[in-house]
Amino acid sequence: MTLSLHLTMEILEGKQCILPALQSRQRKFKLLLIKSGIHSTRIQDILAAAEEQAIPIKYVAAAEIDAVTKGKSHGGLAAICTAKAAFEIEKLIELCKKLDVPPFLLLIEGTEDAQNLGYTLRSAEALGAHAVLLKKHVWNFDGVAVSRASSGAFERLPLVQVENAEKELQPLQRLGIKFYGCIAGAKRTIYDVDLKGPAMLAIGGERRGLSGALREMCDGFVRIPMLAGASSLSLSHAATVVMAEVLRQRRQMQISISRLDT
Amino acid sequence: MTLSLHLTMEILEGKQCILPALQSRQRKFKLLLIKSGIHSTRIQDILAAAEEQAIPIKYVAAAEIDAVTKGKSHGGLAAICTAKAAFEIEKLIELCKKLDVPPFLLLIEGTEDAQNLGYTLRSAEALGAHAVLLKKHVWNFDGVAVSRASSGAFERLPLVQVENAEKELQPLQRLGIKFYGCIAGAKRTIYDVDLKGPAMLAIGGERRGLSGALREMCDGFVRIPMLAGASSLSLSHAATVVMAEVLRQRRQMQISISRLDT
Repeated sequence: MTLSLHLTMEILEGKQCILPALQSRQRKFKLLLIKSGIHSTRIQDILAAAEEQAIPIKYVAAAEIDAVTKGKSHGGLAAICTAKAAFEIEKLIELCKKLDVPPFLLLIEGTEDAQNLGYTLRSAEALGAHAVLLKKHVWNFDGVAVSRASSGAFERLPLVQVENAEKELQPLQRLGIKFYGCIAGAKRTIYDVDLKGPAMLAIGGERRGLSGALREMCDGFVRIPMLAGASSLSLSHAATVVMAEVLRQRRQMQISISRLDT
Repeated sequence: MTLSLHLTMEILEGKQCILPALQSRQRKFKLLLIKSGIHSTRIQDILAAAEEQAIPIKYVAAAEIDAVTKGKSHGGLAAICTAKAAFEIEKLIELCKKLDVPPFLLLIEGTEDAQNLGYTLRSAEALGAHAVLLKKHVWNFDGVAVSRASSGAFERLPLVQVENAEKELQPLQRLGIKFYGCIAGAKRTIYDVDLKGPAMLAIGGERRGLSGALREMCDGFVRIPMLAGASSLSLSHAATVVMAEVLRQRRQMQISISRLDT
């Protein structure tokens, strides 16, 4: 009797997705498909990573790659690999304890679509969030589409799946992380609140807003100043503005912020 | 002999697109298609605007609306109308002269796609930009897709088409509007520059960056602080962060900012 492991396989396409996935080593690669005749200089870094991780390579006709991929931007490269696994909440707690700067987390309770989730992750990485937490229903995304829009951030960022907010997030609060709910009706703006300490920003879906369970856990609420009568910011743009404010406040701190390019 | 006018007709779908288009009166409506049996309370504001503007209404079967629309979100409403016309640069100059606050303009030289252009316009409106200028090649968009993503901002915001930057934008500089180019390599960040005065933010495409012609016109360059080694922000997210910073600086001013909900 054999124990069969049913792992969902995904097909990544294009260098922009495959290279960060190889580099972050959070997926298990089964096979790399490369178009015959491709210039090896163009994919040198891919080949080096594949060799290092002993990933089988198959050189195939372009049509074979066309057949397994969805987009038109594969550029002669496709990879069959496992889906990226969620980062365990216990690992996140360990990560937060080890950081030499105050933890900065983003929690997303809703999203417009896979592309916008990808953009949000891209912003989160660029603006220094240490991890992104996603409510379980948000997690049900097309990992390949998210990865493509994220410019590799999806592959690199720790992504935590949250099912029971109250139970799973309390350990973060016990670490001293303040939860800030971003809601339109908040009295204070993001500029009125000190975001330099350990903080998690919680952002609800565009339609339903932040859930009651999360509101109850929040230490404070903030909003982005906007013009009355105009449409509001989209979720991914609102998240980006709030994260940029965290980084703005933190860059004035005297402590070192790892990797800050300023 | 008759003079025939060849106006491009577009089909808007859904209340979210059609209502702001009716309200801003920048398109000429030929016909409104409404699904028979739709609850009139749901579309009261549409019906009122159509009556006021004497727009013909045709009640049809849902299949007829399905046949002319692309998306699945029309909700029983479609409208045949002219494309939104560009706002003339002369009108923009007049607008800037009349404002009781320093003009705040956004110039976009590239875009990812129609959806992201729509999101950028949505952010521009929410964050108080008075008009958005688009280089001519950016203008070649799918107006319906842009309008849908913009939550109505596309219909309401003055959009100016720029063909010859040097010639067309000089009058704005003569009004005292400072041009700030947003580029990754700038020495100063958006937080180091006073953006409270008359300002135009110029943002290039993600691949090519800001063109030489525009760089030469710029009074200064700014960048958004980001982490090194991470992917950068997408164009629409970068534009949104810079515009939020303009509003942050301006809300501290003592002068009245029209419609600021803060």
